[in-house]
This record gives sequence, structure tokens and C-alpha cells, in this order.
Amino acid sequence: MERDEQYMAMAVQMARETVGQTSPNPSVAAIVVKDNQVVGMGVHVKAGEPHAEVHALRMAGEKAEGADIYVTLEPCSHHGRTPPCAEAVVKAGIRRAVTASSDPNPKVSGRGIEMMKRQGVEVRTGVLKDEADELNRAFFHYIQTGEPYVRLKTAMSLDGKIATASGESQWITGDEARQDGHRYRHQSDAILVGINTVMMDNPTLTTRIPGGGKHPIRLVLDTHLRIPAASKLIQNNESPTWIFTSADIPDEKRLILEEYPHVRIIPLGRTIDPTEVLRYLGKHKVTSLLVEGGATIADAFVRSGKVNETITYIAPKLIGGKEALTPVAGRGIQQLKQVASFEFVSTEKLGEDIKIVSIRKGES
Amino acid sequence: MERDEQYMAMAVQMARETVGQTSPNPSVAAIVVKDNQVVGMGVHVKAGEPHAEVHALRMAGEKAEGADIYVTLEPCSHHGRTPPCAEAVVKAGIRRAVTASSDPNPKVSGRGIEMMKRQGVEVRTGVLKDEADELNRAFFHYIQTGEPYVRLKTAMSLDGKIATASGESQWITGDEARQDGHRYRHQSDAILVGINTVMMDNPTLTTRIPGGGKHPIRLVLDTHLRIPAASKLIQNNESPTWIFTSADIPDEKRLILEEYPHVRIIPLGRTIDPTEVLRYLGKHKVTSLLVEGGATIADAFVRSGKVNETITYIAPKLIGGKEALTPVAGRGIQQLKQVASFEFVSTEKLGEDIKIVSIRKGES
Repeated sequence: MERDEQYMAMAVQMARETVGQTSPNPSVAAIVVKDNQVVGMGVHVKAGEPHAEVHALRMAGEKAEGADIYVTLEPCSHHGRTPPCAEAVVKAGIRRAVTASSDPNPKVSGRGIEMMKRQGVEVRTGVLKDEADELNRAFFHYIQTGEPYVRLKTAMSLDGKIATASGESQWITGDEARQDGHRYRHQSDAILVGINTVMMDNPTLTTRIPGGGKHPIRLVLDTHLRIPAASKLIQNNESPTWIFTSADIPDEKRLILEEYPHVRIIPLGRTIDPTEVLRYLGKHKVTSLLVEGGATIADAFVRSGKVNETITYIAPKLIGGKEALTPVAGRGIQQLKQVASFEFVSTEKLGEDIKIVSIRKGES
Repeated sequence: MERDEQYMAMAVQMARETVGQTSPNPSVAAIVVKDNQVVGMGVHVKAGEPHAEVHALRMAGEKAEGADIYVTLEPCSHHGRTPPCAEAVVKAGIRRAVTASSDPNPKVSGRGIEMMKRQGVEVRTGVLKDEADELNRAFFHYIQTGEPYVRLKTAMSLDGKIATASGESQWITGDEARQDGHRYRHQSDAILVGINTVMMDNPTLTTRIPGGGKHPIRLVLDTHLRIPAASKLIQNNESPTWIFTSADIPDEKRLILEEYPHVRIIPLGRTIDPTEVLRYLGKHKVTSLLVEGGATIADAFVRSGKVNETITYIAPKLIGGKEALTPVAGRGIQQLKQVASFEFVSTEKLGEDIKIVSIRKGES
């Protein structure tokens, strides 16, 4: 049985390499093993392309007959862009299938397993389930709620400051932490900031990691459509820029901005409610969202109860100052019983800094 | 040689048990080994009592002849309350001495080693030096600077808040973190708070750990001597209370407070400067100081460059709020180049919380 864990660990590792590139699909890998030899390997590379099982079975060819298959996610049972993978597994003559995660959609969960069992395939489920679930936490959340999985990323000093009292903020954390932060842009379908951040920092919000990377859709919460046409988010078209506004915005400005093909203006209600933003994003197949700032936006998402995960970089520095900015400001909660509670899932040293990841209680 | 590391690791572990109880002396342990058998063990229990080597040699008796001794700190070479330990080692007929830390006093460092070598004892130094140095970081700092080693202890949410915007602060961190915090009171010669903390929280500042513990001297920075006679720090006499004030304080109030034998009023200059406080404490054999709050006091110590170590408990909660208190407030630093830089030395999960320890750069 230990072999099962070994092969599944390898499959999880393969799937991890594709996190961020398969949206709105999950990251999945498959390995076909016969007589203790790997005869097929595959990952799902991109939405619209074959599933991991199909690649692995194709590589295995006739050797799949009587072989075992390891898949990080229950094979699908429905006819979508591709025929059901559970059917493909059966047709290839697989003797035994080992899976990790279950299908997150309660309507079809278990059906792929059933389909294989009915056709005489021996099935073992739940091997390294936690590790495999973790890879697709965002996807699972999206499938179950119809809203993107929200990550809040902050970088602060050991006393909780994101700038000095005079406003200096570049840089508190070091190169490695900032580099790591860019990996989250690569892995997220969209990135969000408030209009104040745009006005002050004029960010590009693209992914800058060695060897390139996928750029997230760039979102701005901008109630009165104040964003300057000269800002980088308008002038740089490497990725779409979506601007959420209130219903009441100047037509002229809107027309100017909509001249840019990569720019979309999305008027919501009287104010901008994070819940409405997330609903819109879910409808438009945004499965994961990275909230980068500023502190007032972070607070709005925290208070709306919509933060699923936090990524916090802490620098070994003490800045002090009653007037110094903190990562989550705004109104805040008033009573501790209303607090948004998380669970720490990992702590890691990155250069001189520490990275702490936590997930909302009940999320995992 | 691996035996050396094993015996020294045991000695370091023994010495660690006494951290906090030997001030103003260091924590030291010694083991005497003959023919691969432990024949003597000792620790320094308390200032004024015998050194670790003396206990260990006494236990070994005649078996010390031709034996090896392991000591976590270079044996002393001077006649103090006891004769020099280096001499005792020689007299006992020890064949070989293995040490970890060197004497931190540059005037006598190496003399104990020299004394033993001259008398024909084989000596190996620096075995598990880092581990042994760490035990006595506070003592070493005190010997080298004449000032206590300053630890800043804070407990905050993941977004750097020590209370909600409405002021609720009990409790952000959990039982285990608070329990751990009390261990630092046990290990510190003194604990310090500002008068605002006294007015708001009326704390006792004693050590509450299972089985009791040593209470630190309780220090209050109170420029205008506002402390109420009814406060717990005045009414509870389990430990001395020292109140630092400016030179200009009301005589009558002073006389009332000085009626309490455990209370001492210490007028300094026009204002209270952390540097002056530390100098006073050093002169009065306070080797280690725990700064517990509030945020303005923490800021004064940070800006004076006098914080040697930080102990930060972080709860997996997001509180938010521009008006919510942070652990280090006050004026703060203005430019990042003036920042107090530390090095993270450990991260640990305590219940649901995380504990992070950092030491000032160049301190270790």
C-alpha cells in the first residue's frame, strides 16, 4: 500500500506545477503504473485541452491494459468538452484506480468512482486527499459557492505597519518575499486594488517572475470613476482591466476609458459591495482573486466575511507610530466576538522575512 | 568526539532549567565523566551559592581524579564569593575539560582556560557554543554593556492590532500564548509598563505559572507620579514596585507611596529617557527587562535603540480599523533607513497562535 502513497505523492507534485494555468478547471495529474513501472504520465495543461487521465492513458497506449492509474482528482463522469474520463479509464482496460480528492460538485461527486466500479475496476479513494485538496482549494470553493476564492496578501513589519508615519513603504519586506508575492499573481485569475492605491502608487499589477508568468485580470474598485486615463492600468494592455464603479459615474469619462479594448467599466449599485463584486466575478469564471490593497479595501473584504485565505509577509523590523498605516484599516470590527477567525497552515522563512499562510476556519 | 557533544547537550539542557533563577549570575551546568560513566552533575542554583563545577566535583568526590569535566561556561578564574572554579578543577585532578561559552567579560575571558592548561589539564573549548550562548544572552549583554537585556513582548492579531477600534483587547491570543508570556516574567529580573497601562488595566504584573514562579521587580514609567495608591502595584507587595518619574513630582504623593516598604520612587530628569532607566537598572543588578506595554512605551524603547529581543504572539484573526491600537505606536520612525532591524530566530505554534522571536541584528 505504501506504493500507492508514493505514486500519489508524485502525481500531486506534478499537479502542483500547473496551479494557476488551468482555470476555470482544477489542477490534476495522473500516472499509469504496470508491474511497478511507470508507463504513462499526464497533467491537465489548460482549459479546453485534454484531461490528465487522457494524456497519461495515451502515453501508456496498450500497456494500460491491466495497469493501475493514480489520479489526484476523481475522474469526471460527464460529457463536457471531452468524453468522461471514468469511461476512458474503463475502456483502456485499467485494473485498479487510486484517487485523492473527490469531485467538489455535490451533484456529481462519487459518480466517476461508481462508473468505474460498475465496470469492474478496483478503486481506492482518498489517498493523500489533504495534499491534493490543498492544490485546488480555490477551484473547490468556486465550484461550491459560485464565487472566487479570495486571498488577502499583506506585507508588514513585526509591529504591523505597512509604511512609516511619514508614508514611506518601499520596501519593508525583502526581494524574496516580493518575488513570492508575484507567484500569487501568476496563480490568481484576478487581482484587486482600490482607487487610492492606483492614485498613490500607479501600479501595473502584472506578474513579474523569472521566465514570465500569467497576468491576472486587474480589478479596481473606483466608486466615482476617478482613475486617470494616463494610469498604467489603462495605458498598459498586457491584461484586461476591469473597473467596478457605482451606478452614478460621468458618461464622458466612461466613453474615454472604454476606447481601450482591454478596459471594462462595471457599474454596480449606489456603493460598491464586495459581495456584489464577487458575484459578478464568479459569473465571469474568475475562480480566484488576490486582494492586494489598500488597507480600506482589505477591511471591506474582511468585514464582508469574504476572505478565504491570508498571505502575510512579516519583516523583522519595528517601525512604530500611531499614524503609521496598518494592513487592514477602515472601520474594522468593534467587538472581538465578531472577529474573522483563521487557522495558521504554514510558516516559512523567506530571506530575512517570514511568510505566514492562514485559511478561514472551516475552509479546509 | 561525538561523546563531547552528547555530554555538552545534556549540560546545556540542565542549565536551561535554571534560566531566570541565577541572576545576576549566568545559568551554568557541569558534568563529570569517568570511563564513560557520569560521576558528577551540578548546576548553579542561585547567586551566592556554589558554582556548577563545585557541585559536580563534590558529587564526583575521588572519582574526579583522571576524569573529564563538561561545563557550559568557561570556569571562572577570579576569587569572588567562591574560590576560582578553574583552580577547583585542577585540584580535583581532572584530566580534560570541555567548555561551551567563553567568559563574556573581555577582561577575564580565556583566563580560566589558561589557568587549567598551565596546570596540565587538556582543554577543548567552544563545543555547542551557540546553544550555550543562547541561554545566557541576557547575562552576556549585561556584563558587556552594564545595562539589562531588553525583551519587548507583544500580542497582536494577524493584521497587527492589539485591540479593536472600540478598545476591546481581552483576549486576542489564546491561553497557551498567555501562559508562555508568563514564563518570560519568571525569567526576567524586571518587568516594565507605562502609567497608562496601570490606569487602564490595573495589572498585578506577577508571574502566574503552574507551580508558582519568580516574580520580576515591577517598574512603572510615570512622569508625574499619577499612580493611584489603590492600584494593585501599590497594594500587592509580592514583589518590589519601582516607579520612575521626572524630577518634578508632588512631595505629598511621594510620601504616601513611600510608606509602602516594597515601593521605591526614582526621580530622573525633566522627562523619562529609556537610556537613563536602563543605566539605573544596570547599576542595581537588573540583568534582564521585559517591556510589556503599552504601545507608547514600546515605541520609546524602540526609538532609543534599546530593544534587544522581541517576543511576538500572533493570533489568526483579522480585526481591522484605522483607529485600532497597534503594539508599537507613539511617534514611530519616519524613514525606513532609521528602522530597528532584527533577525528572526524562531517560530513556534502555540495553540492556535504563532510565537515569533527575533533578536537585534548583531546581538547573537
